[in-house]
Amino acid sequence: MKSEWFKNCWMVAAHAGEIGDSIVARQICGQKLVLHRTAESGVVALEDKCPHRLVPLSLGRKVGDQVMCAYHGMRFGPDGVCTDIPGQKQIPAAACVPTFACHERYNLVWIWMGDQALADPALIPDLHWADSPDWTVTTGYLHFECDYRLCTDNLMDLSHESYIHKRTIGNVDDESIAEFPVKVTVEQDRLVRAHREMPNIVSPPMFSMILGEETRIHRWQSAIYMPPGIHMTNVGFHRVDRPRESAHMHMMLHLLTPETDGSTHYFWVFCRNYHRDDEELTQSVVRANVVTLQEDADILKIQQGVLDANPDAVVPKVGIGLDVAPVQARRLLHRLAAAEEADRTAIAPPVAMVADGPLSPTGGSLAA
Amino acid sequence: MKSEWFKNCWMVAAHAGEIGDSIVARQICGQKLVLHRTAESGVVALEDKCPHRLVPLSLGRKVGDQVMCAYHGMRFGPDGVCTDIPGQKQIPAAACVPTFACHERYNLVWIWMGDQALADPALIPDLHWADSPDWTVTTGYLHFECDYRLCTDNLMDLSHESYIHKRTIGNVDDESIAEFPVKVTVEQDRLVRAHREMPNIVSPPMFSMILGEETRIHRWQSAIYMPPGIHMTNVGFHRVDRPRESAHMHMMLHLLTPETDGSTHYFWVFCRNYHRDDEELTQSVVRANVVTLQEDADILKIQQGVLDANPDAVVPKVGIGLDVAPVQARRLLHRLAAAEEADRTAIAPPVAMVADGPLSPTGGSLAA
Amino acid sequence: MKSEWFKNCWMVAAHAGEIGDSIVARQICGQKLVLHRTAESGVVALEDKCPHRLVPLSLGRKVGDQVMCAYHGMRFGPDGVCTDIPGQKQIPAAACVPTFACHERYNLVWIWMGDQALADPALIPDLHWADSPDWTVTTGYLHFECDYRLCTDNLMDLSHESYIHKRTIGNVDDESIAEFPVKVTVEQDRLVRAHREMPNIVSPPMFSMILGEETRIHRWQSAIYMPPGIHMTNVGFHRVDRPRESAHMHMMLHLLTPETDGSTHYFWVFCRNYHRDDEELTQSVVRANVVTLQEDADILKIQQGVLDANPDAVVPKVGIGLDVAPVQARRLLHRLAAAEEADRTAIAPPVAMVADGPLSPTGGSLAA
Repeated sequence: MKSEWFKNCWMVAAHAGEIGDSIVARQICGQKLVLHRTAESGVVALEDKCPHRLVPLSLGRKVGDQVMCAYHGMRFGPDGVCTDIPGQKQIPAAACVPTFACHERYNLVWIWMGDQALADPALIPDLHWADSPDWTVTTGYLHFECDYRLCTDNLMDLSHESYIHKRTIGNVDDESIAEFPVKVTVEQDRLVRAHREMPNIVSPPMFSMILGEETRIHRWQSAIYMPPGIHMTNVGFHRVDRPRESAHMHMMLHLLTPETDGSTHYFWVFCRNYHRDDEELTQSVVRANVVTLQEDADILKIQQGVLDANPDAVVPKVGIGLDVAPVQARRLLHRLAAAEEADRTAIAPPVAMVADGPLSPTGGSLAA
Repeated sequence: MKSEWFKNCWMVAAHAGEIGDSIVARQICGQKLVLHRTAESGVVALEDKCPHRLVPLSLGRKVGDQVMCAYHGMRFGPDGVCTDIPGQKQIPAAACVPTFACHERYNLVWIWMGDQALADPALIPDLHWADSPDWTVTTGYLHFECDYRLCTDNLMDLSHESYIHKRTIGNVDDESIAEFPVKVTVEQDRLVRAHREMPNIVSPPMFSMILGEETRIHRWQSAIYMPPGIHMTNVGFHRVDRPRESAHMHMMLHLLTPETDGSTHYFWVFCRNYHRDDEELTQSVVRANVVTLQEDADILKIQQGVLDANPDAVVPKVGIGLDVAPVQARRLLHRLAAAEEADRTAIAPPVAMVADGPLSPTGGSLAA
Repeated sequence: MKSEWFKNCWMVAAHAGEIGDSIVARQICGQKLVLHRTAESGVVALEDKCPHRLVPLSLGRKVGDQVMCAYHGMRFGPDGVCTDIPGQKQIPAAACVPTFACHERYNLVWIWMGDQALADPALIPDLHWADSPDWTVTTGYLHFECDYRLCTDNLMDLSHESYIHKRTIGNVDDESIAEFPVKVTVEQDRLVRAHREMPNIVSPPMFSMILGEETRIHRWQSAIYMPPGIHMTNVGFHRVDRPRESAHMHMMLHLLTPETDGSTHYFWVFCRNYHRDDEELTQSVVRANVVTLQEDADILKIQQGVLDANPDAVVPKVGIGLDVAPVQARRLLHRLAAAEEADRTAIAPPVAMVADGPLSPTGGSLAA
């Protein structure tokens, strides 16, 4: 499976809180980086390789706004230019490292891995829920040992919840998620949405935990994808005897950043609109999310292994009805990657991820 | 070392007892399989790869006689045909997995990895000792990290017992097994037999344990091989002051099934004709066998490492007298593999492994 | 990074004390060897591969002056010729293994990996300190997971001590070793010397430990290299109020022998001329040396990883003033390797490593 990246965009490099007093080594799109927070320029990202003897700068340490190499003490500023070489006054012009534009927004550190001239913060996708006072936010990170596109396949067909995630968000056998019709739309050639209404079902374990009992609920789920790596799962649910306006809602952001061909940084941001100060619930939700995502990570790692052993394989090999949204998602991504391949200055401005409406992306009625 | 397989034959896929209520993943001749026992068709073997997203079916579970994929819940029957796809009624014709014929006999599950049209149970080798009421049988399994042909080299020259297996079946230095002449015969172009009589020797540790004392014995051993992977070591021994008719006898089956180019499933079946209800002895024998076979596994893994690092090497590089039987064994195997290479429908019916005679394959007299 | 070896020379294969009653497996310049000490021929080195089935001879054991293979008991004498094959009288002429000349001197076992006809003990470098009654000697060994040339780069620019070795021999920040000028000389086209005088500095931790207090000292250091793998670091230091003649002196030998393209045997011999019977100090010095060398090993392993991932990289990529000696060292080595590439009988007689003079290689005055 040939890798497929689109780099002229902002990707998540870190949760903001990760970059504090010390330097952080991180690989993105195959590029090894050292990230650190400077007084002068905020978070900066330098190639993680001293131009002298190629030792990773991340072995060194911060000296003010500079990174000092662990081996011979050369120092590099936020712009990547060497400022200090022990034992000599003159700094050769070649003594510098490439840098990559960073920008903080929504408590996330965004990085631009493509053409640096194009790195306009206006192109950061709107994820305002992630630091809105109207939502309670919890965050986390998992390392996925697979191509990020396998995560996209996974996130755009949520029917797998019935099989992989029985312990948290999967439904019982006789209410398999796949049995409810899914409506797939492609918006502005930039976003795929797969929406499913699931009226009058038994609450899965995580929802029962939130509601305090297993009961019958109306539930909806929208899987939204903006390539290359921005996913949102919008979920709403309420007791069948309550109005849609009372729904508990989740905006779960899955922010995928390729590490290498076969590994992915998986940043998640979970926003909820209920029991907003219940710290115990927050902890339970974190645990349930980690369990759920780890179940995905486990199976996708195995799937990646099969693909590695069968480099000419295409997935899905046999297509089924549930593949409509994943296939559309891959198609959008492929179009972006091909555009960038043809023109290194191609960009793709983000669009809004959630349409107007009182509660859900579609505004439809579950109980209809 | 180029691999050399002969697939138009029955190989051992499992001890029958291994395949119970749950599914078993096993790789044979480089093919990943999922094995399970069905009500309808006995043990069946399916390719271990869902045709949808290539996830191993062995991650899933049995639902009646079907295997259900862990990822999206597709189900496959004993014939490999998909019977159920969540969310849709229609099953695409391509939604099926290859199957491989299986047959149970002698408490072993046999599998046919070659041309499926040729899988005739009449071609299963006669190993009737393995479930005969006249013998006490113990069984086991080891995973060998080497090409199965290295096991054949090992099993066809038992002189190595004096060096590798001193703790169990090796002889003392001044009675090195190599010092007793070996008679090698090739029978019906299908079987190699290496027979050695060892009169009046000190009993090796395992035999002393069986006899209850270290004493002088007459011993014989026949190493019998039918390619590609059926080995029997027939051993007899008795105190020098007792008649040959009183001999303790072993029929040790070594059933080799290639897992990959560089690894082997090693099923063993140990049949004895003495102290038949002595459970303590049975346990001692199991331990001694495991020790002995693990000693082989250890050295063959290292030998495989050398061969991997020297892909053009041929063994034996320098031939010695003891190599006659291993070389004949390789020659028979090579002829089978070449015949199959030339004609994918070539088969090689098995022959009887032990000739008629009162006690031993040759019926000769140890004390002669 | 293409490997670069010069084999027509004596390299250190072992500390003499390593080769006692049992056999030792060791790989040198990619050649797997078995070393053992014989009554007849002193230490001998045989290829570690039985010519029968290619099993490592080092799995076997000594029988007198012979090595016996673990698998089938074949035995090989100090000249590599097979002397015994179980079960037969005749020994085939091909039953022998290559041998490599060894010679013991200075408590070291030297080996000649190149053209065996040229292995003249007169070509062993003069390291007489290593077993001189005038010095107290301690020795050790580390396995470095890097090309031996990275060790040479490291040893020929000692300014890294200020960064990597702060805990032992590094100086404080405001006395960075790099700030003292280094004088680099190439002698007889065979040896590189980098000499640095460091007058009136604060004693680094290891020197304070030796002197019993942190104090101001005069210090010198000479890094001396004779390719392919002989390094000496000559260090002297004394309190600023004492004469140069009172200096504590170290002759630290770093004897580098390539194991493979990416790993190195690092034998060290530490000779001192003070507190000669202080066993506690000896133990402290051993610990400090191990800490110091392990710090090098750690960073060079990482550097090797970067070079493996960037096979076309050249180091230094950006040259700085401190690289003069390492670059001269690589140049001498490269010339030797090229000479041997052109003529397999090329040799390069060693030269004296330390010039005449009362105390130091240069005899200069620290306090001048």
